[in-house]
Amino acid sequence: MSAESRIRHPELRRKLMSAEDAAALIASGSTIGMSGFTGSGYPKSVPLALARRIEAEQAAGRPFRVRVWTGASTGPELDGALAKADGIEFRLPYNSDPIAREKINSGRMQYIDMHLSQVAPVAWQGFLGPLDTALIEVSGITEDGSLIPSTSVGNNKTWLDRAERVILEVNRWQSEALFGMHDIYYGTALPPDRVPIPLVRAGQRIGQPTFRCDPHKVVAVVETDSPDRNQPFAAPDAVAEAIAGHLLEFFRHEVTKGRLPASLLPLQSGVGNVTNAVLAGLMDAPFGNLTAYTEVIQDGMLDLLDSGKLALASATAFSLSPAAAERFNAEAHRFRDRLILRPQEISNHPELVRRLGCLAMNGLIEADIYGNVNSTHIMGSRIQNGIGGSGDFARNAYVSIFMTPSTAKGGAISAIVPQASHVDHIAQDVQVLVTEHGLADLRGLAPRQRARTIIDTCADPVFRPALADYLARAEAGSFGGHSPTLLDEALSWHQRFVETGTMRP
Amino acid sequence: MSAESRIRHPELRRKLMSAEDAAALIASGSTIGMSGFTGSGYPKSVPLALARRIEAEQAAGRPFRVRVWTGASTGPELDGALAKADGIEFRLPYNSDPIAREKINSGRMQYIDMHLSQVAPVAWQGFLGPLDTALIEVSGITEDGSLIPSTSVGNNKTWLDRAERVILEVNRWQSEALFGMHDIYYGTALPPDRVPIPLVRAGQRIGQPTFRCDPHKVVAVVETDSPDRNQPFAAPDAVAEAIAGHLLEFFRHEVTKGRLPASLLPLQSGVGNVTNAVLAGLMDAPFGNLTAYTEVIQDGMLDLLDSGKLALASATAFSLSPAAAERFNAEAHRFRDRLILRPQEISNHPELVRRLGCLAMNGLIEADIYGNVNSTHIMGSRIQNGIGGSGDFARNAYVSIFMTPSTAKGGAISAIVPQASHVDHIAQDVQVLVTEHGLADLRGLAPRQRARTIIDTCADPVFRPALADYLARAEAGSFGGHSPTLLDEALSWHQRFVETGTMRP
Repeated sequence: MSAESRIRHPELRRKLMSAEDAAALIASGSTIGMSGFTGSGYPKSVPLALARRIEAEQAAGRPFRVRVWTGASTGPELDGALAKADGIEFRLPYNSDPIAREKINSGRMQYIDMHLSQVAPVAWQGFLGPLDTALIEVSGITEDGSLIPSTSVGNNKTWLDRAERVILEVNRWQSEALFGMHDIYYGTALPPDRVPIPLVRAGQRIGQPTFRCDPHKVVAVVETDSPDRNQPFAAPDAVAEAIAGHLLEFFRHEVTKGRLPASLLPLQSGVGNVTNAVLAGLMDAPFGNLTAYTEVIQDGMLDLLDSGKLALASATAFSLSPAAAERFNAEAHRFRDRLILRPQEISNHPELVRRLGCLAMNGLIEADIYGNVNSTHIMGSRIQNGIGGSGDFARNAYVSIFMTPSTAKGGAISAIVPQASHVDHIAQDVQVLVTEHGLADLRGLAPRQRARTIIDTCADPVFRPALADYLARAEAGSFGGHSPTLLDEALSWHQRFVETGTMRP
Repeated sequence: MSAESRIRHPELRRKLMSAEDAAALIASGSTIGMSGFTGSGYPKSVPLALARRIEAEQAAGRPFRVRVWTGASTGPELDGALAKADGIEFRLPYNSDPIAREKINSGRMQYIDMHLSQVAPVAWQGFLGPLDTALIEVSGITEDGSLIPSTSVGNNKTWLDRAERVILEVNRWQSEALFGMHDIYYGTALPPDRVPIPLVRAGQRIGQPTFRCDPHKVVAVVETDSPDRNQPFAAPDAVAEAIAGHLLEFFRHEVTKGRLPASLLPLQSGVGNVTNAVLAGLMDAPFGNLTAYTEVIQDGMLDLLDSGKLALASATAFSLSPAAAERFNAEAHRFRDRLILRPQEISNHPELVRRLGCLAMNGLIEADIYGNVNSTHIMGSRIQNGIGGSGDFARNAYVSIFMTPSTAKGGAISAIVPQASHVDHIAQDVQVLVTEHGLADLRGLAPRQRARTIIDTCADPVFRPALADYLARAEAGSFGGHSPTLLDEALSWHQRFVETGTMRP
């Protein structure tokens, strides 16, 4: 496939240049809106060239840093390379790159961890300042200059509309069969001009298959041929399978009670091996005609689509292992009618999550006995990744489910603690909590009832007596009795871990 | 005004009976959906009779307790009387009654503190069990048996639809001019049948002025003539006026920057003297054609309507002082075209709050240096009232503002603490924080920047050095550096208060 056949607009074809030349168009201090969401569809060439330029400038004694806005996480060629060059002054809205994480936690990178549905409207609201450059990977450019999206949509529509100028990477590695899979909705606005979003089914299309882009804003087009770089997922282990088993049993129970239809409701799920175990479990579960309205399409969803169990999936990005990505590229035509990628403002929109009644399944770092969830901060201070879309989904879901192994670090850390060291999801937004030991249905329970249920059902048996003892002493000695708390002990498990390397007494 | 003229449906008129006879229809253990929201429109006669019955039964050695669902807080004749009789086993979704609060905090009443927009859908979802009786105050019954709402709408539509039987209180004290002021939307459903809510302006009517009610479900009609019992508000003091001044200056600044229109955006506000100071300040501020899309209509809004500054207000209830309630009753005809009362599912709906772009102004108990807000739990354990609608509005607002005096208890408690002892609003949902000392615009700031801004701008000068010292030591000695935390000191201010009666060292 030649570059020409992917770039069908003559004026834009004339803007083809090297990644180095494109990177030279970016000034220090400028703000760049990058494509990319969970390791998919991020620019792979210009950021590397920019990182080299930053390193050269800094070696010559000239400070050079940029501000980076993305969809969510990207890949090593973007966040990794720029962070390694110490070239990112400011970053939003989500990061999972280990080098960037280190910069953030050492205070050398300002990081704003945002609800993913809110990034696009906030960018329009104006207080973040102007967006100088949009740097967007696409899979092609049509004759009229429209842009065919790549494997993630993220905030690209907003970056393209909002930026003063645009740099495009056209990636030949991406399947041409992506064309037609996206649904780019152009009906958003700032208040007072907002209107209802006319989506009532997960599979509905309300937009167009391409991005609009004023060709005069495009200052560079760079050709690439480079794969998305997601990590392979670990295969589900016994713990993940036990968690999935409890959750599927809960779904069966809710269907039996008449509280869920046999096709369930649109599934939202985070990423990781627990989620993949749930998806694998759905292959054999007595539910059919399933739908997903979620952030990312992961490996297990391709299998569910293949089996016919999953009728369709709506997301904003792929998050496929290298093997699954190859498979998708080879067989994209088979999936394209049943996969829809939307802007993350739409995939995660509270209006739509609530309307559709998503079943939200998210992971966590720790939950406390009352069911407050920490998704982001290890020991209350060290950011791991970010809140991502979990808040968009958890608060508005039909049932908000959080899943986790009951321990981490080989049993040194309990995922159930007396008090969460940081809170991302308040107890009101956590209705079901699942570990390998069981599922706690917290709906309709008051705080003390929640605490007993979580301790008895979800906590690891090694930590259960200490949690029950804490609760009993808190009930006897707390300042107030609605959510009994021992203030001088509430965070002591975390302190013990920091001091001794384990939460165990 | 005779009872007959308020009860125009012949069959229902035949069901007129005493409050005692109506209360006798309620069985121990049953679940009652009561009207009432912020001291308005709650049943005033049957709950008192029920409390007497419960006391008599208990005196005779027969346990008698009920489960109570409401809109939000009610009045002393309902929560106060039933809690005093120890007759409430379970209560949702919000409480401000001091006797009920004591029962909750002593573990004798199960209390579920809920997002107010979620109560109606959750009641339909089914896991809370059946609703035996709806006990609803209305201001009249039409010829066809439709019910004219009273001074709050709350969850009444849902209770009337969901309950197996209905007891009505027809309150002659309520103005007949209320007829036509309500907008009862009947378009909600459970997924997968939910559709967009067709509201795009705060003042739009999308429903009907009355509740539907199957007359065959009505088992009793009781006539009352009794005022809503709200407390008078304290007049704004210098602290409240300073907070209001900072906030109005912020609005002026945002209008100047072109980030807000001169009519601002629909205002949402909690209740209390700080809010009343803001509303009073708006009388002289350079904004016009204001609108409110909020939970409650409070005193200051009547003045703003009178002045012409406020074009209209949408809410789910009145929350007027006795004097303002008398004024409203005397002049309701003047206000009725510019006031709309809706079900709380609609007044607080995330879809609508986000679409309209509300400016959310809520109070708090404490905020930590990173801007996590505790709205509910004193010293992390003692529930004060509840989260109410603050989560519905804060997460979806165009600008989410929290306001508080910088100290409480005569300076013994700092409203700014190293770590919130309970979290209701995560930092992502807290964009502006205001005390009498200043306004912290936290938008676009990373955690450490937020901390410095909050300490320097909002904290009381007495506590500022200790907060800055904590932050500096946390930055040096924290496990992770994104949101630096000293785990063994984070809650020590609260512990000191519990031990010594003050947070001051």
